[in-house]
Amino acid sequence: MSSEATEQRVLAAVGERRELVNAAIDEDLPMADPERLYEAARYLLKAGGKRLRPTVSLLAAEAVADVDPLSEDYRTFPTVGGEASDVDVMAAAVSLEVIQSFTLIHDDIMDDDDLRRGVPAVHKAYDTETAILAGDTLYSKAFEIMAETGADPADGLEAMRMLASTCTKICEGQALDVQFESETEVLPEEYLDMVEHKTAVLYGAAAAIPAIILGADEEVVDALYQYGIDSGRAFQIQDDVLDLTVPSEKLGKQRGSDLVEDKETLITLHARQQGVDVDGLVDSETVEAVTEEEIDAAVERLEEAGSIDYARQTARDLTEQSKECLDVLPDNEARELLCDIADYLITRGY
Amino acid sequence: MSSEATEQRVLAAVGERRELVNAAIDEDLPMADPERLYEAARYLLKAGGKRLRPTVSLLAAEAVADVDPLSEDYRTFPTVGGEASDVDVMAAAVSLEVIQSFTLIHDDIMDDDDLRRGVPAVHKAYDTETAILAGDTLYSKAFEIMAETGADPADGLEAMRMLASTCTKICEGQALDVQFESETEVLPEEYLDMVEHKTAVLYGAAAAIPAIILGADEEVVDALYQYGIDSGRAFQIQDDVLDLTVPSEKLGKQRGSDLVEDKETLITLHARQQGVDVDGLVDSETVEAVTEEEIDAAVERLEEAGSIDYARQTARDLTEQSKECLDVLPDNEARELLCDIADYLITRGY
Repeated sequence: MSSEATEQRVLAAVGERRELVNAAIDEDLPMADPERLYEAARYLLKAGGKRLRPTVSLLAAEAVADVDPLSEDYRTFPTVGGEASDVDVMAAAVSLEVIQSFTLIHDDIMDDDDLRRGVPAVHKAYDTETAILAGDTLYSKAFEIMAETGADPADGLEAMRMLASTCTKICEGQALDVQFESETEVLPEEYLDMVEHKTAVLYGAAAAIPAIILGADEEVVDALYQYGIDSGRAFQIQDDVLDLTVPSEKLGKQRGSDLVEDKETLITLHARQQGVDVDGLVDSETVEAVTEEEIDAAVERLEEAGSIDYARQTARDLTEQSKECLDVLPDNEARELLCDIADYLITRGY
Repeated sequence: MSSEATEQRVLAAVGERRELVNAAIDEDLPMADPERLYEAARYLLKAGGKRLRPTVSLLAAEAVADVDPLSEDYRTFPTVGGEASDVDVMAAAVSLEVIQSFTLIHDDIMDDDDLRRGVPAVHKAYDTETAILAGDTLYSKAFEIMAETGADPADGLEAMRMLASTCTKICEGQALDVQFESETEVLPEEYLDMVEHKTAVLYGAAAAIPAIILGADEEVVDALYQYGIDSGRAFQIQDDVLDLTVPSEKLGKQRGSDLVEDKETLITLHARQQGVDVDGLVDSETVEAVTEEEIDAAVERLEEAGSIDYARQTARDLTEQSKECLDVLPDNEARELLCDIADYLITRGY
């Protein structure tokens, strides 16, 4: 299938579920007292977002239960064995989106980023104290929401366990990312490990937790987790490629900003191994000062070293791996859409 | 019993369990990679602390299971019905201490406090970014640890649910505390509600979660929770009284610092209701500038208004309420020690 048709199918699948997800977020994380705290906690979630991870969760549920997409109520979903039909997979999807929002709020404080999703970051719209506390509130709310899926208690507890270990890994990944900024020699494997922790585990949990609470076999749970890990890693690598290859106006920020800001990526780490003087690629020290010609020359040098192709190929390999994981699932439309999402994550233009 | 004998019994009970708790913290929260992250996360836990909350948890387990203090291994504890004898109540105690440590780290950032337990706060010993992330890591680790008590899954899930809602309430309490700083008219009931959220719910969870994972009846769980809530509120009120009545050298900080820093307490809120000009009680604007004479005069004014007696009486009433909650438990030594702890929280001299 052409990548354009894939993209259309993915955007349709996401679009068809977005309103349901947004309504569920409002239900599971309603306004409460103290108002300012809950306004700050809900602020980013209300500001939008594609809802890609919740879509992965909802499709994973449909694929595992082997039901037609959108044929079942996500709040009263049938288990795999058919013993029960009242598992709230939507709560699991919301819980993970709430965790994602918490990490964005705290990351923006740590990185001192001013903007997020086109609006001021929470610590700018409110203040740092409120942003720390808003993130902390979302953190526990995510666990409260995950506790209410109505799954068999052993499965419910296992879902809580995975949610907790996922959060720990995200923190470890963020710490590694900060650590790498001051290290001169990071191996590509170490970078991929960091990306797995920081970004991919949340995709892994988004795919695996619905299988857990629907009572799927461990083999299926593990396969969905690995699907999320591999496609999540590919997603991050594609982000690094796009930063160099997509025109600034389409990217919504200066092309090559990672290079200007000395951010290591799989591309620069590969280039270093090839003997490229990565630190000398761009002289300008700010994204305001850099010229398109400078970026063009840097990209050409990275292309000559085979570094961009290496990143693209690594992302493609991970995507193929991720799709193969899904072979253990029944052959159905939801599984196809999960494959499409994996493809989309590395073929999307921006 | 005299308050001195009570204090000795409490300190003995805490002391007998401290090394066990410290060893368990090391086991359940070991050093890991990235090292700097885990050093920062473990830093405050290693710096000490009385371990009062873990002691409450361990005594609650002994009281509920009706076993002699220190007669059973806390890692393989018998359930109430006697069906199982492998519940890890120590993990629950550690989990709550880890949550306590996370809240201290984030609170110190928010309040910009430099010192904690006699050592620099984590955001001073490391940096703010690391401190945010260290707190976030402890947060999820606490859930990971609580997930491994080996309790019946339904009970284990219920414990996770209470842990999550407790964390949400702590965040709400902290937000209320900040909000009250800019409000002129806070009612004593609102103050007690804030204290319940910010401080007491963690005592409630410390007392109730062991009962949950040991399979105790809901009535017992609720009673232990309320015991923790009432004694925790009394504890905070006593803190406010001590700030005015204990000599600075014994208090370890300037007596009356709450007044100097315009911090509202049950005492000042009562005094305002009696028409006392609380804002005019102390002219000095820093704890360095204030004199003992100024504090003496302010305390005399508050005593005349009956505000200190009001706070003391409120704390005593709450303590009596908290002890009455324990009547549903079997009459045993651990229950007596829980009563002693409630008394100790308001009779302690500093």
